[in-house]
Amino acid sequence: MLAGQEIVWVTGTHGFIGRHISRTLASKGHFVAGLGHGAWPEMEAAVWGVSAWLNGDIAASNLGQLQRLSGSPKTIYHLAGGSSVGAAIAQPREDFARTVSSTAELLEWVRQYTPNTRIVAISSAAVYGSDHEGPIREDALLTPYSPYGYHKRMMEDLCRSYGASFGLAFAIPRLFSVYGAGLKKQLLWDLCSKLAGNNGEIELGGTGHEIRDWVHVEDVARAVVACADLADTSGPVVNIGSGEPLTVRDVARRMIDAWAIHGHPKRDVVFSGKSRAGDPFSLLADVTRLGSILPCLNHTTDAGFDAYVGWYLAASRGNV
Amino acid sequence: MLAGQEIVWVTGTHGFIGRHISRTLASKGHFVAGLGHGAWPEMEAAVWGVSAWLNGDIAASNLGQLQRLSGSPKTIYHLAGGSSVGAAIAQPREDFARTVSSTAELLEWVRQYTPNTRIVAISSAAVYGSDHEGPIREDALLTPYSPYGYHKRMMEDLCRSYGASFGLAFAIPRLFSVYGAGLKKQLLWDLCSKLAGNNGEIELGGTGHEIRDWVHVEDVARAVVACADLADTSGPVVNIGSGEPLTVRDVARRMIDAWAIHGHPKRDVVFSGKSRAGDPFSLLADVTRLGSILPCLNHTTDAGFDAYVGWYLAASRGNV
Repeated sequence: MLAGQEIVWVTGTHGFIGRHISRTLASKGHFVAGLGHGAWPEMEAAVWGVSAWLNGDIAASNLGQLQRLSGSPKTIYHLAGGSSVGAAIAQPREDFARTVSSTAELLEWVRQYTPNTRIVAISSAAVYGSDHEGPIREDALLTPYSPYGYHKRMMEDLCRSYGASFGLAFAIPRLFSVYGAGLKKQLLWDLCSKLAGNNGEIELGGTGHEIRDWVHVEDVARAVVACADLADTSGPVVNIGSGEPLTVRDVARRMIDAWAIHGHPKRDVVFSGKSRAGDPFSLLADVTRLGSILPCLNHTTDAGFDAYVGWYLAASRGNV
Repeated sequence: MLAGQEIVWVTGTHGFIGRHISRTLASKGHFVAGLGHGAWPEMEAAVWGVSAWLNGDIAASNLGQLQRLSGSPKTIYHLAGGSSVGAAIAQPREDFARTVSSTAELLEWVRQYTPNTRIVAISSAAVYGSDHEGPIREDALLTPYSPYGYHKRMMEDLCRSYGASFGLAFAIPRLFSVYGAGLKKQLLWDLCSKLAGNNGEIELGGTGHEIRDWVHVEDVARAVVACADLADTSGPVVNIGSGEPLTVRDVARRMIDAWAIHGHPKRDVVFSGKSRAGDPFSLLADVTRLGSILPCLNHTTDAGFDAYVGWYLAASRGNV
């Protein structure tokens, strides 16, 4: 550690978003320490700017150990938690443990040992649920639609409880559909996997009319880091999205176009018409508040989807 | 067990309210099995109508054991959880474990092993928080005001999540200020302890103008049992209160009067003016919905407070 370096922690560091947040923090000169699941060789963690890494649950013992390694953090970016609606439906108790119990453990440890540490608790647009049309403001009614969404809301409530009763300062970014090179799940990954497979029609679930708000992981990382300075005991919420409504059909067409740039024939896409459990119809961010802390995004979806396809093809040739 | 007996479980059986619910269920001819904390000799449990009792956490292993003892329950009355605002502020992580994690464990076990079991999940008026005046309807905005209230809301949300995603049937009674012989905490107990102590003024916290809704534990037990037949996947909520607004000063005066019946001089009461942390100003039930399942309460507060004082004095003479 260098003299004067700010110590920051990232939980769930090894995940797709955690790695990018760590790199953004390291690029600002911070000392980044992390805790979460994953075997992560020191050299690889260092590539992402992580100087100290513990592979384990968010438990008091591990948090104490991390404090011994790095010192007390000025800010904790709390990303540890379940990471998909489908997994939460398949194993709801496990998702509860990862998302809710881990937060209970973290907040209690902070209350007892480092009560001045700011917490940026990463939530999800899933807390808004299925009752919305058009851009969703942060003060919209929360009607979660899946165990994943319920557990994220419970995570938020735990922060509010510790803010109100114990004076912890926190902020809550709610992430919409995050994508970027390296993400090996969700719609873009599924589309690439199908485009790389047999020829013929691409079939997707749902109707194709579902609306999502896609935002690049590097913009998400910058936005999340900017949220730290908003932290207070009332826990401001900030939507992290692009504000651009794209249907699943739009996304599929753009990905097929991007795929064609690489010399592959264009393919058709069809939809099963069957929605997936826990899948709201429309999740679009009102980005007014985000605009006040991050005026511009660096990645458009057009360029971002092209880059994703480029990464996928390179990775599948073993070049990444 | 008798042929044809309905099997019901009560978690937190050994607590003040759990005992009364167990007795009410046994009086209807049900086979009552229980799980929770407390060393409870078989003979004493039997007095309360409990035929099988396990002393332990709400954990899958204990739930499986209870199923081996009693068979699968038609209904589970889930009372296990933290039991006071003050304790939740002193040890928030412990209250979370008791109230929220225990419910996560119970719901998951039911989902896997007895998905047709109905759950009556006992919540609290504390979920309503401090932003209310006059009678509070079940669909009021929930703005919890303490870790205790937040955790109860999280318990409710877990039930909603399992109802929506996994089809579990549940109902949520929200209990207001429950009292009755045997309750050794809260305002009535504090008042009696002070009345039994030195002479002179009785001093209480708060302003004396705080409004609460007092309801006798035997009426609570009947109401909670009546909620089971409402259970469905949307989880109807029912306020359990009397609908009678009483200030703390009103309660203190009535208790002092009841005390005087036993030949003791009347005492004055003064208020510190300092509110307790986590203590909302007014918690009064709108009892419209309760009236549709339980048209009449058996206990008025006048008679109930007199009886409480009578119990306290008998108990302090070692007669109970």
